[in-house]
Amino acid sequence: MNPTRTWIVLLALATDVPARLASAVDPPLLGFTAESSAVQRTLEERFDASVRRSDIRDWVERLSKRPHHVGSPYGKENAEWMAGLFRSWGYDTRIETFDVLFPTPRVRQVEMLAPRPFRAVLAEPALAEDATSGQASEQLPTYNAYSIDGDVTAELVYVNYGVPADYEELEKRGIEVKGKIVIARYGLSWRGIKPKVAAEKGAVGCLIYSDPRDDGYFAGDVYPKGGFRPEAGAQRGSVADMPLYPGDPLTPGVGASSGAERLPREKAQTLTKIPVLPISYADARPLLQALSGPVAPESWRGALPITYHLGPGPARVRVQLAFDWKRVPARDVIAVMRGAEEPEQWVIRGNHHDGWVNGATDPSSGMAALLAEAKALAELTREGWKPRRTVVYAAWDGEEPGLLGSTEWVEEHAKELEARAVAYVNSDSNSRGYLGLDGSHSLQRLMNEIARDVSDPAKGVSAAERLRDRALLGEDEAERRRALAREELRLDALGSGSDYTPFLQHLGIAALNIGFGGEGRYGQYHSIYDSFDHYVRFMDPDFAYGAALAKVGGRSVLRLSQAELLPFEFTALGTAVATYVDELETLANKIRSATETHNAAVERGAFEAVAPPDELRVTPARKEPVPHLNFAPLQNASERLQQAASAYDKALASAGAGAPAAARREANAILLRAERAFTRPAGLDGRPWFRHFVYAPGFYTGYGVKTLPLAREAIEARRWADAEKGIAVTAEVLTAFAGEVERAAAALAPAR
Amino acid sequence: MNPTRTWIVLLALATDVPARLASAVDPPLLGFTAESSAVQRTLEERFDASVRRSDIRDWVERLSKRPHHVGSPYGKENAEWMAGLFRSWGYDTRIETFDVLFPTPRVRQVEMLAPRPFRAVLAEPALAEDATSGQASEQLPTYNAYSIDGDVTAELVYVNYGVPADYEELEKRGIEVKGKIVIARYGLSWRGIKPKVAAEKGAVGCLIYSDPRDDGYFAGDVYPKGGFRPEAGAQRGSVADMPLYPGDPLTPGVGASSGAERLPREKAQTLTKIPVLPISYADARPLLQALSGPVAPESWRGALPITYHLGPGPARVRVQLAFDWKRVPARDVIAVMRGAEEPEQWVIRGNHHDGWVNGATDPSSGMAALLAEAKALAELTREGWKPRRTVVYAAWDGEEPGLLGSTEWVEEHAKELEARAVAYVNSDSNSRGYLGLDGSHSLQRLMNEIARDVSDPAKGVSAAERLRDRALLGEDEAERRRALAREELRLDALGSGSDYTPFLQHLGIAALNIGFGGEGRYGQYHSIYDSFDHYVRFMDPDFAYGAALAKVGGRSVLRLSQAELLPFEFTALGTAVATYVDELETLANKIRSATETHNAAVERGAFEAVAPPDELRVTPARKEPVPHLNFAPLQNASERLQQAASAYDKALASAGAGAPAAARREANAILLRAERAFTRPAGLDGRPWFRHFVYAPGFYTGYGVKTLPLAREAIEARRWADAEKGIAVTAEVLTAFAGEVERAAAALAPAR
Repeated sequence: MNPTRTWIVLLALATDVPARLASAVDPPLLGFTAESSAVQRTLEERFDASVRRSDIRDWVERLSKRPHHVGSPYGKENAEWMAGLFRSWGYDTRIETFDVLFPTPRVRQVEMLAPRPFRAVLAEPALAEDATSGQASEQLPTYNAYSIDGDVTAELVYVNYGVPADYEELEKRGIEVKGKIVIARYGLSWRGIKPKVAAEKGAVGCLIYSDPRDDGYFAGDVYPKGGFRPEAGAQRGSVADMPLYPGDPLTPGVGASSGAERLPREKAQTLTKIPVLPISYADARPLLQALSGPVAPESWRGALPITYHLGPGPARVRVQLAFDWKRVPARDVIAVMRGAEEPEQWVIRGNHHDGWVNGATDPSSGMAALLAEAKALAELTREGWKPRRTVVYAAWDGEEPGLLGSTEWVEEHAKELEARAVAYVNSDSNSRGYLGLDGSHSLQRLMNEIARDVSDPAKGVSAAERLRDRALLGEDEAERRRALAREELRLDALGSGSDYTPFLQHLGIAALNIGFGGEGRYGQYHSIYDSFDHYVRFMDPDFAYGAALAKVGGRSVLRLSQAELLPFEFTALGTAVATYVDELETLANKIRSATETHNAAVERGAFEAVAPPDELRVTPARKEPVPHLNFAPLQNASERLQQAASAYDKALASAGAGAPAAARREANAILLRAERAFTRPAGLDGRPWFRHFVYAPGFYTGYGVKTLPLAREAIEARRWADAEKGIAVTAEVLTAFAGEVERAAAALAPAR
Repeated sequence: MNPTRTWIVLLALATDVPARLASAVDPPLLGFTAESSAVQRTLEERFDASVRRSDIRDWVERLSKRPHHVGSPYGKENAEWMAGLFRSWGYDTRIETFDVLFPTPRVRQVEMLAPRPFRAVLAEPALAEDATSGQASEQLPTYNAYSIDGDVTAELVYVNYGVPADYEELEKRGIEVKGKIVIARYGLSWRGIKPKVAAEKGAVGCLIYSDPRDDGYFAGDVYPKGGFRPEAGAQRGSVADMPLYPGDPLTPGVGASSGAERLPREKAQTLTKIPVLPISYADARPLLQALSGPVAPESWRGALPITYHLGPGPARVRVQLAFDWKRVPARDVIAVMRGAEEPEQWVIRGNHHDGWVNGATDPSSGMAALLAEAKALAELTREGWKPRRTVVYAAWDGEEPGLLGSTEWVEEHAKELEARAVAYVNSDSNSRGYLGLDGSHSLQRLMNEIARDVSDPAKGVSAAERLRDRALLGEDEAERRRALAREELRLDALGSGSDYTPFLQHLGIAALNIGFGGEGRYGQYHSIYDSFDHYVRFMDPDFAYGAALAKVGGRSVLRLSQAELLPFEFTALGTAVATYVDELETLANKIRSATETHNAAVERGAFEAVAPPDELRVTPARKEPVPHLNFAPLQNASERLQQAASAYDKALASAGAGAPAAARREANAILLRAERAFTRPAGLDGRPWFRHFVYAPGFYTGYGVKTLPLAREAIEARRWADAEKGIAVTAEVLTAFAGEVERAAAALAPAR
């Protein structure tokens, strides 16, 4: 029966159906017929009933009981324990081990030599209120992984977030960092960007501190009174150059198996070029306070009770770092439930299990929810149910140092994944709050249906409606209007920062990143205070949002695995891409206009005229005028994509999941691999590991996405010839993708 | 000769004219012929040559040598000394004395009773680096003038800036201030708004503190190392309800002569309803730190190293205040140079002379520049020159407590001023930086010509070009484009905060407010550290900007007094009014849209759904839907004004200052009184003292202007019937003004 007609018939009957049956008259789920939707909804209800908050509580506690970074004894225990759980639930489970570079510190020292002596403490004290904070023997000290060794002494310069625009501000003031040590604050960018840019500018060392404005007392009461970062708290973290490639620095592009060919360490491009260390705001304050030179621009000033100056000096600082450059095993737990009908189609669901220290929020909150989800899914099989497609649960190791476990696994299994992966669904830290909506736009409608069907546990309304409620109370009028009209919620494009990156951006596997957040009081990111004690007071006290995450994850997996027709859809993607194309043109126009006024300002001496008294200002050079770029190829490709999406929508409406099995099979084969059409084997210029031409982490943002990156980053960097080329290549990629969508539409509903 | 043709002829000759003669070939000045422009330019060159920085330096030092608030011995000395100077330069000079209410404190005490005892210091210590800071016997203590007496004890609530929108935020959180003492930070509004709104909400007392974010260490190094407010520094200031009426609280609308009828103090509407006291951030910190309750919204948090909470309590505070409610003499120095040709047409130029303490910046910097200007003008008369119109220089007393001297003088002389005043040119504090452009838009072209003709002393470029340079380097693309096209610089409309208010907003006399600023390091506003020592280090070390102000003021006076045709022009006004009309419509639409989404949010329970965990949220009521207002009368009036401005521009181009004497005389008579057409005797609803229907200080902003206030404030307050009425009345006023402009055009260039 035509599903649309079924829906109309059911709707006609709907007036007096009891609430219990309401789901039966909802429109069919994407990829399902009305009949299979009803079955699926029943399945999901049974699934929900098996998700237990007490499990999640126990497992967050268990996972975070001791420090469990990659290569640690408790990390191994956790992996083996989880493998045991999966096995006990009936999953075909294995631990896949990779052999990854993971430096830990031997020497860490930061001393101020002038204008007065000060030695940074570089330690987070144990707190009576936090039971695990005293596990000193197993804790990694505060450090940045993949910093190189070094012993440098130099004057200090404050560089704000340490992104390229910050150095432009310094240059305007005649301040160079060549030969200096920079101190940057955490925030805005991936932390690895800070030493990367500092080194490009000639700095010899880099300190990164947590300003209290960001996650300390400015944000809220500090731990243990409140949830935010206390003055001695510091943020560990990787500083690998991940926008170049993530994963083991020694084995780019291939799985770091024990026998893999490895680069010598000196050749590993993702290690920093200069030594770098994170410090607390208690340690940073004397250093910043000792700076003179110009007062920092207003937006650079944090919440320390000082006047922020830029330097250089008179603060003179020595930073000594030496690491133990060992290799350690990264243990990925892989648990497979084989599909009954399409075993060669894999739905992959993962979360990492390693933490920087005890990692209750990051990652145990997400990991425990994933376990609860996998358990509930397994319970469905007790009654004979089997997934249509193969479901793969993964607990990644070594995410923190650089997505090691996921990247190596993806590289190792690239060939199978390219052929078989339907989608990858990621989660990571979770807390009370709002459902995040991030992922491939071809999954936007699926995600909307899931957000509609999962309740916010604190409020009873659906996660989707709560997001609309928030938009309705927000500042943005356009968003308020969209919420009022109940338009589809838009996905945000994925940049980087968690384990979806190798799937999406290396192989072109459609991906989602799911999780609740925004209402935790989280100032303990990557510190020893990211503990169970902190979690139950400030993040998700009753683990209700953990359960909600399991329900979102479960639905993602169950719908992707059960849908007769893979639940992709392309109009949202078409809209998103059209927006990105508009953004590029607007960006180029904006740069052109800014260049015109900049050059006029240079010519008329405006920089000199506006220089404030008693402060040096350096007049910048004229900039090359911005040519008009030919956006037509992109616009045409975008148009074609939108038309293809419309055609597919029509095919969905007319045939959809009710299409004949052969047609569905053909369409599914195309849909499964559609996102691959956004990739090219040669990858992006200068960073071939990144192969996706719609979504990439910014080369100078790291976490933040750059959509249509080849064109966008060339425009941002004023490489006009590259921009023209980027537009052309991106247009080809979009056109190829549109072709796949057209094929899928044709397969599903052949033209009569 | 037709001035336009003259200009073309001179231009043809211009190729090889030496630089010295360049001014002769500039376009004629507004209101002058080519010939009289050349004369005027020579006159201004001679004027400039007589402006001496050393005079300004000496006079700032002299004026600020001792505390000189209204009624003080040194205030009297200053007035008499200035009167002597004016007399010595040949001005017909008198001191006009008014008898004004000026309370000074007898008792000031702020104690925290719980959760721990603390007594506020309420004193600014003397500094070795600041010679006058130790003059304790003559210094006014830190207090707010026109606070009532009181002795109140209550829990404390933090209310951010204490404007109405802040209380909406508190109400959303279920926090009421009824029966509480509020602590507000300085900034955003006129300080008198804070106790006014607090009292409206039922608070029993009000503390106002200087957050270091505003003018303390966040802004820059603190005094004496830098120019910003040290932790014990506090901001004195008036808290009279000046948006109701300025001037002596006991004599609204009439001059406070000794025999004037006075309100009993209990009937004076501009005194506060609750006791209020300013405190330093050293005194505020323990109070704020002792608050619990919800964490303040992010934009409410200042730069103290604490987590800002809202309260109420547990901080419990007692505030005791008692004042000596004495009347004191306010001494205005009035110096007149009678016009040779049009003695009944007055150009008025003023600055106040009273300070809160030593007041080097505020007001001595502006006062000394005015003196230098008046002296230079007088020197022109040595060679037989006399002004065409009468020039009146004024040094106002009692500006700080509430524009006392200027308001009483204007009220006393209202009748003459209405008939005779061409314009009022005000100045106040001055420092290095950029020329401010604020005033009646009918003077925009004049002000542009002056800004073009006065050099920025630090940079050599004209003040106008420096403003364009700044715009060119700014963020706003539209402003960059305007600067690039060298469009006329736009005046900002005047709100309140200095002595132009009675002239402009009570009598409808076109006004300018002139002064340089923005590059001083000024954290000493209304403190004992606003001293000569501070001034010469941080504000205008070589008094070059004082001299520049004298040149701007001198040109304003000389052009207004000498122009054959009064230098008004109306296209800028037409554009400004059209913008204001658009703003009103946009504002109404915005409120309508926000109301729709607000009501939808109330109905769907969005407020409950978005309430954060562990925090109370109160669901607001539905709001009355916003009707569509009839803006047509305003749009038609605005259109007519623009057409009238065009007609006047054509008359200027065809006849202008070269028109026959009788025509000029007729036009001048109309032009002189044109701005009066923006007023109505009945004034604004609820505050009849304010009679100007285009410019008014906001009833809830105080300093900040509300243009087209009758309509705008009704829309903002959701009084829709009043808004309709306000639109109609404002349209009538604009139409009446347009009629005056049409008459002026017709007088100048009668239709053939």
